Amino acid sequence: MKLLRKTILKIRGLDNALMEQARKWLDNLTKPQGSLGRLEELARQIVGITGKENPPLQHKVIITMAGDHGVTEEKVSAYPREVTPQMVYNFLSGGAAINVLARQAGARVVVVDMGVAEKLQVTSYKLQGNRISFKDCKIGLGTKNFTKGPAMTKEEAILSIEKGIAVFEKEFRKGLDILGTGDMGIGNTTPSAAIISVLSGTPVEKIAGRGTGLDDAGLLHKITVIKKGIKLNKPNPRDAIDVLAKVGGFEIGGLTGVILAGASNRIPVIIDGFISTAAAMLAVKLASRRGGIKDFLIASHCSAENGHRCALDYMKLSPLLDLNMRLGEGTGAALAMNLTESAIRIMTEMATFDSAKVDRKVQ
Amino acid sequence: MKLLRKTILKIRGLDNALMEQARKWLDNLTKPQGSLGRLEELARQIVGITGKENPPLQHKVIITMAGDHGVTEEKVSAYPREVTPQMVYNFLSGGAAINVLARQAGARVVVVDMGVAEKLQVTSYKLQGNRISFKDCKIGLGTKNFTKGPAMTKEEAILSIEKGIAVFEKEFRKGLDILGTGDMGIGNTTPSAAIISVLSGTPVEKIAGRGTGLDDAGLLHKITVIKKGIKLNKPNPRDAIDVLAKVGGFEIGGLTGVILAGASNRIPVIIDGFISTAAAMLAVKLASRRGGIKDFLIASHCSAENGHRCALDYMKLSPLLDLNMRLGEGTGAALAMNLTESAIRIMTEMATFDSAKVDRKVQ
Repeated sequence: MKLLRKTILKIRGLDNALMEQARKWLDNLTKPQGSLGRLEELARQIVGITGKENPPLQHKVIITMAGDHGVTEEKVSAYPREVTPQMVYNFLSGGAAINVLARQAGARVVVVDMGVAEKLQVTSYKLQGNRISFKDCKIGLGTKNFTKGPAMTKEEAILSIEKGIAVFEKEFRKGLDILGTGDMGIGNTTPSAAIISVLSGTPVEKIAGRGTGLDDAGLLHKITVIKKGIKLNKPNPRDAIDVLAKVGGFEIGGLTGVILAGASNRIPVIIDGFISTAAAMLAVKLASRRGGIKDFLIASHCSAENGHRCALDYMKLSPLLDLNMRLGEGTGAALAMNLTESAIRIMTEMATFDSAKVDRKVQ
Repeated sequence: MKLLRKTILKIRGLDNALMEQARKWLDNLTKPQGSLGRLEELARQIVGITGKENPPLQHKVIITMAGDHGVTEEKVSAYPREVTPQMVYNFLSGGAAINVLARQAGARVVVVDMGVAEKLQVTSYKLQGNRISFKDCKIGLGTKNFTKGPAMTKEEAILSIEKGIAVFEKEFRKGLDILGTGDMGIGNTTPSAAIISVLSGTPVEKIAGRGTGLDDAGLLHKITVIKKGIKLNKPNPRDAIDVLAKVGGFEIGGLTGVILAGASNRIPVIIDGFISTAAAMLAVKLASRRGGIKDFLIASHCSAENGHRCALDYMKLSPLLDLNMRLGEGTGAALAMNLTESAIRIMTEMATFDSAKVDRKVQ
């Protein structure tokens, strides 16, 4: 709990004075004022987060956390549980969607085992230099089935967050300018929907979605399972640790830690899809006494998963992209990393009206 | 007229068989079917356009066409006309937004003078190797004021399109895999709104917008000016050349040619904002007997300009981005080029279920 408390206490607000300076600078570049819309807002936000006039772009990192879920016993996913470790191996081989999009964005990928339900054999993978790395932070062989009791203990919930913080801190020391989050875990839209439903006070029916591809009957069953878990465990919506322990997941807790650590170290955090957004809601709740960390977050995209828009609205985050995606892994974050880079480059590379000798507006 | 006719006659439909093959291939990659949403649709579209299973990504080009407009005499823009040549010089120096975003996307920028209202002095610019180039295709020193008569002659309208085709063909011979369009021309949202209003049969009030930043009174005045031009010239909505000649612009005609030539050479054409969309509507109309060229177009973004959404809807194009941008130059096209690259890379770089030994869906 000490590392978590320390991390939260380190969080400060945005640098408003520097953001105002950035606004003036942006208005001085050779374009009509505000004509780059969201890119200009993003540029100001990143200045406010980093406290730097020229935010660096050298080290881009996607942290993709994997875990399994006891609740898959209830048949809430279209894919077998074995796919979680198989996809971790795919990440380490560089063949998954997140590898492709991270390569394009120039980001390195940190794959973290937070609680995959089998012992992973990773020594045989040539990890493409330092562009893909693996961290073993396994807390257990998957969570427990939350329809029969809490998914994990309170201690495990705290541990998952603190392991996430530690992963971030280690990557930060290596060099980290912009962060994207990602997840892998068969069944993990189920705990994510439970968390979002509980924290936002929205009925499960409006939040739960088809995940990797449930049919109508499968979705109805998933809703019943989530409701059963919430009814049995009674997670306290004012206590993020309680919610994470009772209906969460190890990789979700890990991502909550990564997000908190990003905000406390003044690094822009690009939130991926539904699972990362559930983790972000927990982080926002945990840091609520520090004025929240919402301002440090960049919502990459609105996924096709049912309740994602609702969760983003709850945090008052507006997604950059809306491409009907629902893959996770950090794929949305990787795409939004390109837009984030665009925003920074616009601010740092464009000519001013004076330097380019361009006339200003007449009206 | 011969080059225009030849270009249109060369247009064929998408390669549907190869698109179906691409669908099967995408379904075989290590992700739930369709989970990358628009990226997968985009990948299939590009296969259908290019007729290639592995569409190349080596040569990305943004063609940004500049022209001036006689109608600026009516005070329809917030910026003075001198800004058009000044911004062309800014493009050639590499300091404009399009330069920044094209550099990030790895695209070269071709700046074309279609009708800037002064003789440009470009010899002193070091054109950053072959990443920025300049073409002189000047048809005249700006169009005429369309509130007093047609903006240009019918011959000039055809010439502007054919010069656009020639610019494309020349770049195509140098190597061109993906194309983005862009524009520069103080006052050019006015002819663009006129074109979109006439071709779509939508009232000017619903199409005209604030351009570079008109206030309420300025917008009302602009609407009056456009209506006056349409009433005086009576452009025939079934005749794209007539519309272009009477209420269009040289750079708009040039872009129409570029778009037609892109489609006829089976190159994906990323349409930028409001002005490029007006040019695309003219191209779609011109090629309507060939089944249209809409399938060859990728709508990069929905701009903040009033009627842009309406114009995209009219062509049944769904924009990839919606970032409240309204700059033009090709900036939206450059951002969407990154997404286009993502779509192609996903299709060509990801592992399959078999190659990565990942289990498939159970249901």
